[in-house]
Amino acid sequence: MTPATSLFTPVEADLQILAENLKQLVGNRHPILYAAAEHLFGAGGKRIRPAIVLLVSRATMLTQDITPRHRRLAEITEMIHTASLVHDDVVDESNMRRGVPTVHGLFGNRIAILAGDFLFAQSSWYLANLDNLDVVKLLSEVIMDLAAGEIQQGLNRFDTSLSTETYIEKSYYKTASLIANSSKAAGLLSEVSPERAENLYCYGRHLGLAFQIVDDILDFTSSTDTLGKPAGSDLKSGNLTAPVLFALEEKPYLEVLIEREFAQEGDLEQALRLVQDSQGIQRARELAAEHTKLAAEHIATLEPSASRQALINLTDYVLSRLY
Amino acid sequence: MTPATSLFTPVEADLQILAENLKQLVGNRHPILYAAAEHLFGAGGKRIRPAIVLLVSRATMLTQDITPRHRRLAEITEMIHTASLVHDDVVDESNMRRGVPTVHGLFGNRIAILAGDFLFAQSSWYLANLDNLDVVKLLSEVIMDLAAGEIQQGLNRFDTSLSTETYIEKSYYKTASLIANSSKAAGLLSEVSPERAENLYCYGRHLGLAFQIVDDILDFTSSTDTLGKPAGSDLKSGNLTAPVLFALEEKPYLEVLIEREFAQEGDLEQALRLVQDSQGIQRARELAAEHTKLAAEHIATLEPSASRQALINLTDYVLSRLY
Repeated sequence: MTPATSLFTPVEADLQILAENLKQLVGNRHPILYAAAEHLFGAGGKRIRPAIVLLVSRATMLTQDITPRHRRLAEITEMIHTASLVHDDVVDESNMRRGVPTVHGLFGNRIAILAGDFLFAQSSWYLANLDNLDVVKLLSEVIMDLAAGEIQQGLNRFDTSLSTETYIEKSYYKTASLIANSSKAAGLLSEVSPERAENLYCYGRHLGLAFQIVDDILDFTSSTDTLGKPAGSDLKSGNLTAPVLFALEEKPYLEVLIEREFAQEGDLEQALRLVQDSQGIQRARELAAEHTKLAAEHIATLEPSASRQALINLTDYVLSRLY
Repeated sequence: MTPATSLFTPVEADLQILAENLKQLVGNRHPILYAAAEHLFGAGGKRIRPAIVLLVSRATMLTQDITPRHRRLAEITEMIHTASLVHDDVVDESNMRRGVPTVHGLFGNRIAILAGDFLFAQSSWYLANLDNLDVVKLLSEVIMDLAAGEIQQGLNRFDTSLSTETYIEKSYYKTASLIANSSKAAGLLSEVSPERAENLYCYGRHLGLAFQIVDDILDFTSSTDTLGKPAGSDLKSGNLTAPVLFALEEKPYLEVLIEREFAQEGDLEQALRLVQDSQGIQRARELAAEHTKLAAEHIATLEPSASRQALINLTDYVLSRLY
């Protein structure tokens, strides 16, 4: 059991049911989708997003069992996340993700686009059938944010004038919106107070931002083997993340290298060295730590339970990936 | 004014408001989407689907004006249709559609996938904000059907054992589902009886099927100029439609040509001639006529009005495209 999954002990049985359900839900309409579902929802996959939904569900339904609608919400969350990964891989022409072939790599452009569309469509349909308009609104906002985040990332490539605020906004769209809105939605299904729902949203928002910032740091500090993609690939593709944005404040030459899009031999290597030699990575770590701290504070407002503790521990786990 | 648009006289002013709203709704989040929206919702476009929604709205709100929610439903319908066209063009690698460059052709793969995702996401979001769960369910079913229909069409390429029933099912998913469910949804917003809602669904279903069958016939009978794509291109790509399925019952050699995927010089031309020499096109016309007749019968159950008459005339117009 990896450190990530041992955090999920309170919902381990729930996650097994979820994995089986997802394969059946997605695969039952077409053989090709069945193959994609087996691939997407089979072995591997950390299932952090549905685990958070299930933990929030259990942490807000202390005296009662969680309902089938809580489980369905967790499944929808994973379907939306997976749909966005499938389309990201098409857009980025990625044939591998974390060492495993992508749907794009296995089945080609056509099936990957349609499978992603089908997953988004199916998640909207299951969402509507939760019979809770507020939950439908929260999660459709997420689907819109995911598309907007991906578009914004494309528009901002190699733009060294990008502000930290815009970086945080993009990270919210790409990563934190799903965690924030699905945490809040789980609370709404448990009929929590509006104030508590807001705390759940803030927990998810800050955890999601920390998660994205840590991912962005790992792109600089991990080996290619660990990442399953070349280290420094964000920078190479012009996706300017926290470590670079902070480094730019200290190293003016970094701007020159980025603005010419690493056109000359050795530019990328030199840029990576400038980031390493700056306070960029350290300052990004501090930014991630601020967000995990805020996440922990928001979730601490719930009554104590094993699930609440797991949600608190998750904030430490996110930072621990850096060490 | 073309024959199609003169049918829409009762909702002409509504359609102008719709065109302006669509450009604003879609374009306000990102400049690149603004460009795509200008392109997609600007000049041209027959807007048959939102026109049907608006006509059904007016035909079911006889004594009162239609509501902002009826208008929003019409806009959502066009957004869903447009999103599916944008992704179809990526999947089929089409750079032109009806003589106009596609989003894929103008902006490339990446933006076309993301713009389609964004349109689907935005339509789900506006849908949720109609605050009517039944309408949300009907339209999310449509988005799922569109993806399923496209996948099914891909799987059935060059499959000469395709039954007419499967062809009708695929045509329902690809074309009729949107018209049927949005017509019913417009009725629900007008608070019609369940029986009347079912009649509206059946009107849309039969009209949509007739529409698709006629489109499939035109692929054989129109000139390349009229179509904006090479005539016979469905058959060439292995998309077996009504005229071919009927022709296969008379011309066994057609099966040979299709099953070898027109591998030999002159195969496609010979196959097109076999279809022309058969009763296939005539039988497909009769099938389309049956469906327009059923559509007209279902809509005739509404009280008489200019909008009801336009919906009836539309069934004749669909067939008139063949002559």
